[in-house]
Amino acid sequence: MIILGIDPGLALMGYGVIDYSGGRHKMLTYGVISTAARSPMPQRLRTIHTALGQLIDTFQPEDIAFEELFFGHNVTTGIAVAQARGAALAAAAERTENLYEYTPMQIKQAITGYGKAEKQQMQNMVKLLLKMDEPAKPDDAADALAVAITHANCLHAKELYRIK
Amino acid sequence: MIILGIDPGLALMGYGVIDYSGGRHKMLTYGVISTAARSPMPQRLRTIHTALGQLIDTFQPEDIAFEELFFGHNVTTGIAVAQARGAALAAAAERTENLYEYTPMQIKQAITGYGKAEKQQMQNMVKLLLKMDEPAKPDDAADALAVAITHANCLHAKELYRIK
Repeated sequence: MIILGIDPGLALMGYGVIDYSGGRHKMLTYGVISTAARSPMPQRLRTIHTALGQLIDTFQPEDIAFEELFFGHNVTTGIAVAQARGAALAAAAERTENLYEYTPMQIKQAITGYGKAEKQQMQNMVKLLLKMDEPAKPDDAADALAVAITHANCLHAKELYRIK
Repeated sequence: MIILGIDPGLALMGYGVIDYSGGRHKMLTYGVISTAARSPMPQRLRTIHTALGQLIDTFQPEDIAFEELFFGHNVTTGIAVAQARGAALAAAAERTENLYEYTPMQIKQAITGYGKAEKQQMQNMVKLLLKMDEPAKPDDAADALAVAITHANCLHAKELYRIK
């Protein structure tokens, strides 16, 4: 089955599409939807909404998994990322009800077996699991692939985290 | 000219449409886009995106003005409202580039002449300015009409606050 993983962001929203069947993950594509800081916020949100919609229409994923949002110290950045996630969720919900989310800790745990794994370890494991020649770049795309793999593993364990 | 005012929210997103010409405001419609707390978040964002789009398509406002978002004590509510605002901004940006925003203080100042006016005063002034028989209900709709009037006044004063 096709799974789309999303690492929400405003400047860079990472995505990764995998095919999970027979207990194996196969990477189909990955990348980022990028929006320019010089563009007005509404145009950036429009770009995210439209581009994600096109991505879903192209790959027709059965399930879509998002990394859950956590607020750091910077509330302004938090609002911007939450708005971007809102535009992305609206585009996804227009196409499927199979939407899931995982915390950064769940993702690290699923990929490396350790909830506080470092970025480098995560990228190496994603590369290994998907039999890629090079680690996915930028980090946002690698993170999105990690979300997709996490969801695949949860399907396997029948432990699903549907967005409520 | 037709102006749409928006008071962003997840459970209730207020809207108000006015016609501003010859220095006078005329109320065309007001109301709320409401989403049920029992629905999953993505469906609620989808509803906001779709319903706001239909509203804009129906009234064809030249300008759309949003109340700016401020985070209170509750970060969880803040994320939810920011996501709702993101879905709304994406729908608006798909239809026009004339998007503006005003802080609660700017709106209070514009409507009552006092930046810390109380809700009751605001509602009375909105009723008076739009020559309505009864105050607009719920509060979210009255607030949205206040945003629209604020933008009309700023047009008048040629002091515009485009969303960056």
